[in-house]
Amino acid sequence: MTQPLALGIDIGGTNTCFGLVNRRGEIVAKGNLPTTGHNSVSDYFSALALALQPYIETAGKENITGAGIGAPNGNFFTGEIVFAPNLPWHGVIPIAKTMSESLGLKVLLTNDANAAAIGEMMYGAAKGMKDFILVTLGTGVGSGFVANGELIYGNDGFAGELGHVIAVRDGRKCGCGRNGCLEAYASATGIVRSANEWLEERNDSTVLRAHKGSITAKMIHEAAEQGDAFALELFDFTGKILGQSLADMVAITSPQAIIFFGGLAHAGDLLLRPVHKYMEENMLNIFKNKVDLIRSALPDADAAILGASALAW
Amino acid sequence: MTQPLALGIDIGGTNTCFGLVNRRGEIVAKGNLPTTGHNSVSDYFSALALALQPYIETAGKENITGAGIGAPNGNFFTGEIVFAPNLPWHGVIPIAKTMSESLGLKVLLTNDANAAAIGEMMYGAAKGMKDFILVTLGTGVGSGFVANGELIYGNDGFAGELGHVIAVRDGRKCGCGRNGCLEAYASATGIVRSANEWLEERNDSTVLRAHKGSITAKMIHEAAEQGDAFALELFDFTGKILGQSLADMVAITSPQAIIFFGGLAHAGDLLLRPVHKYMEENMLNIFKNKVDLIRSALPDADAAILGASALAW
Repeated sequence: MTQPLALGIDIGGTNTCFGLVNRRGEIVAKGNLPTTGHNSVSDYFSALALALQPYIETAGKENITGAGIGAPNGNFFTGEIVFAPNLPWHGVIPIAKTMSESLGLKVLLTNDANAAAIGEMMYGAAKGMKDFILVTLGTGVGSGFVANGELIYGNDGFAGELGHVIAVRDGRKCGCGRNGCLEAYASATGIVRSANEWLEERNDSTVLRAHKGSITAKMIHEAAEQGDAFALELFDFTGKILGQSLADMVAITSPQAIIFFGGLAHAGDLLLRPVHKYMEENMLNIFKNKVDLIRSALPDADAAILGASALAW
Repeated sequence: MTQPLALGIDIGGTNTCFGLVNRRGEIVAKGNLPTTGHNSVSDYFSALALALQPYIETAGKENITGAGIGAPNGNFFTGEIVFAPNLPWHGVIPIAKTMSESLGLKVLLTNDANAAAIGEMMYGAAKGMKDFILVTLGTGVGSGFVANGELIYGNDGFAGELGHVIAVRDGRKCGCGRNGCLEAYASATGIVRSANEWLEERNDSTVLRAHKGSITAKMIHEAAEQGDAFALELFDFTGKILGQSLADMVAITSPQAIIFFGGLAHAGDLLLRPVHKYMEENMLNIFKNKVDLIRSALPDADAAILGASALAW
């Protein structure tokens, strides 16, 4: 087979997924390995190279234009993963250089949300858009901002940290050490924190009370689907915090659309309806009724692989 | 003279300034006329064309590549001034088309803060920068965001409304009808509002008390320079609100520098020292000590003319 391919690698906190992608954005082969459980980062690199080798040989290395990696705190400019709190290894990891040497391929790196934004722009809901925001709602909140058809990396390669704008001044403690970050409220973890806080303070009847201490975002989603008022109010509150912050972002980059991706986005309209309502309520007049809120149509793992692979073209 | 020239026009609430600019960014001729006092917008257009005519004839129309206009609420994509609260005419004004017909030149429009950002990028403090934010602190707060070497216009041409991000949730009423906008605090008007509010509630000794009701930003600046504690606290408070909002903006576009322009920026370190302190205090770790705060070195009127003229090249 002689069609040109690009290798896309998505490194998550638990799993690493990869795939070979053709020019049309079709994943022609894919595989995965655990991110965790290796004794050191160099053991992980060896395991990753070993897992990739058969795919590269089958496709023919001469047909692979290069590899793109999406990883938390991945820096496009330096090719390093820098102090990623959700990965097993800390410090600065020169992953692009190391993997390029071991695979004999050109390797580029970006962060996972940026990779998803590129995936949406090339193959997904943002196809043909020049100005949009991709928001990932998972364990944390990530984002990729695209303006003038280009991803905003910023001067240091770390732009797009929507999860760390202050949504509530002097609010909840965030994993980053500051208070009130959007991520502390509008992530899967954030909505669970809201649930646990409310259960301490309130006495409403809710199916979630039985799970106090072990509530998950999925449970809240299911309870809301069954009409549980407490769970619906949690989505309303989460949507309010997120909608308010997005209204501010619209004033800065005036996107055509905001695309939602990741675990908490699976709640769909349960979340997006309140986000839309509060975003519009809080928005400067000239921006009202212009910005589409769209749930990503790409499967989570695929968008990340597609986006990462797109770096290599 | 055969050097190519561009015409730059800066429309302010009170005055309209214009100049002919060469490729090196030198203003070779300039003039102005009042923006106010005309019976209608078409009278203003006639007066503007009349004022420009001798400059165009002297330079030779064949040497002028075109004209750029910077105006509040000017839209780059449509060439229209749209509902500008600080201009004497309301509604939608198709200024680029009208002036192009009357001058026989290509005419492009953008908003005043965007024009200043382009001026700084081509000829001023942002020369050679690919990622920066220009903040104008005048009657209101305006901004131009540059990423990947390009101004962010957004999908509708209205991007960069930093003055209307919510700095204080449920805070002061803003001219836009919402509450707590940055502009209601960090503009020349905003610091005066703070002064008047504090004088109602507090009894500190301050030289400003004698001027209650007619305080200006300039008076606060002068009082602070003389060491008046109340005036210094006003700058600290204003710098805190602005610094907090800028910390959020840095997380989004990760600029190399933020450049300050306009009346209140003349206070220099009185304002920029607290802005810097609170921005750093509120910033996500990875961005700390990376972003320069710079006062524009171009004279206010010149930067706007230079930036507007740059649209025409």
